[in-house]
Amino acid sequence: MKIYLAGPDVFLPDAVEIGKRKAAICAGHGARGLYPLDNAIDLTAGDASLTIFKGNEAMMDAADAVIANLTPFRGPSADAGTVYELGYMAGRGKFCLAYSNDPAVYVERVRRFGAVTKSADVWTDKDGLTVEDFGLPDNLMMIHALDLHGAKLVAPRQAPADIWHDLTSFEACVVLAAGRAVGKTS
Amino acid sequence: MKIYLAGPDVFLPDAVEIGKRKAAICAGHGARGLYPLDNAIDLTAGDASLTIFKGNEAMMDAADAVIANLTPFRGPSADAGTVYELGYMAGRGKFCLAYSNDPAVYVERVRRFGAVTKSADVWTDKDGLTVEDFGLPDNLMMIHALDLHGAKLVAPRQAPADIWHDLTSFEACVVLAAGRAVGKTS
Repeated sequence: MKIYLAGPDVFLPDAVEIGKRKAAICAGHGARGLYPLDNAIDLTAGDASLTIFKGNEAMMDAADAVIANLTPFRGPSADAGTVYELGYMAGRGKFCLAYSNDPAVYVERVRRFGAVTKSADVWTDKDGLTVEDFGLPDNLMMIHALDLHGAKLVAPRQAPADIWHDLTSFEACVVLAAGRAVGKTS
Repeated sequence: MKIYLAGPDVFLPDAVEIGKRKAAICAGHGARGLYPLDNAIDLTAGDASLTIFKGNEAMMDAADAVIANLTPFRGPSADAGTVYELGYMAGRGKFCLAYSNDPAVYVERVRRFGAVTKSADVWTDKDGLTVEDFGLPDNLMMIHALDLHGAKLVAPRQAPADIWHDLTSFEACVVLAAGRAVGKTS
């Protein structure tokens, strides 16, 4: 089973190293992890970003599954690029898995960035925009996409000390993917 | 042509009204806009969020195209649910269009939420995470998905006074969609 490793991990200072750790965990469960930074890109080229896109899309097309890191990134929600990729993989009918190292529900996440208020049973943020309140950790589209196109979001009971480097929930996703691969061939 | 109307517009205080305005613009160009809030949902039901998901996915499957509102939402990037939907539509091979009422490049958007610093030609944010710097307004996955699966992101030269209610760039997307529909049948 080939698993596309989506996540803002590529923006970490040790982005290459974390990709290697994820690939090693995949290998330990008989799967192959495909990590965006495995594509060799000349970042000084004028069309570098387009080359990255094409490389990532080709990797996704080649993969059987995606494990998306939906840990909140620069706001209450997951990284936009990662979410795009989860949507793309769902649209392509691939097996969709994801984890978040932050188990907080969405209203609590939004509250970190400014007051939220409740009126007539509806939460709104500081800009007067409605805050989804279904007891889910992020926008319902991603959470239920996992329920219907893969497996339920994996999240720890409590956020680990290092939300960007703790791979416990990631490994739980790999186990789910590997189990499905076994199921398919049996 | 049926166009799925994706966007955080559903979180505006006048969410129903803006959907009607968007649908009217579509109708004015011979297209039919499908807006998430057109699905009748009992928000008090225990499975309301799953019902919303299923309704939105059915609408996307029925649509020929998507117009996503990628105006930044609760952070430097677009709304996560909208981005998921754009990815899903790209994965399904639908015609992908989007607009942003904020034309600022991504580094500038991130700067609004905290200092960004440049070292060895790489921008990092206040948490030490790399900031994409390709002169694009948002994560390259969405921007180039539009380039390759539809049409270039539509954005004004300057943000309009009311970024949530100005539909000039939205209408430009409708024109692009309608033009393609004409092209397909001629």
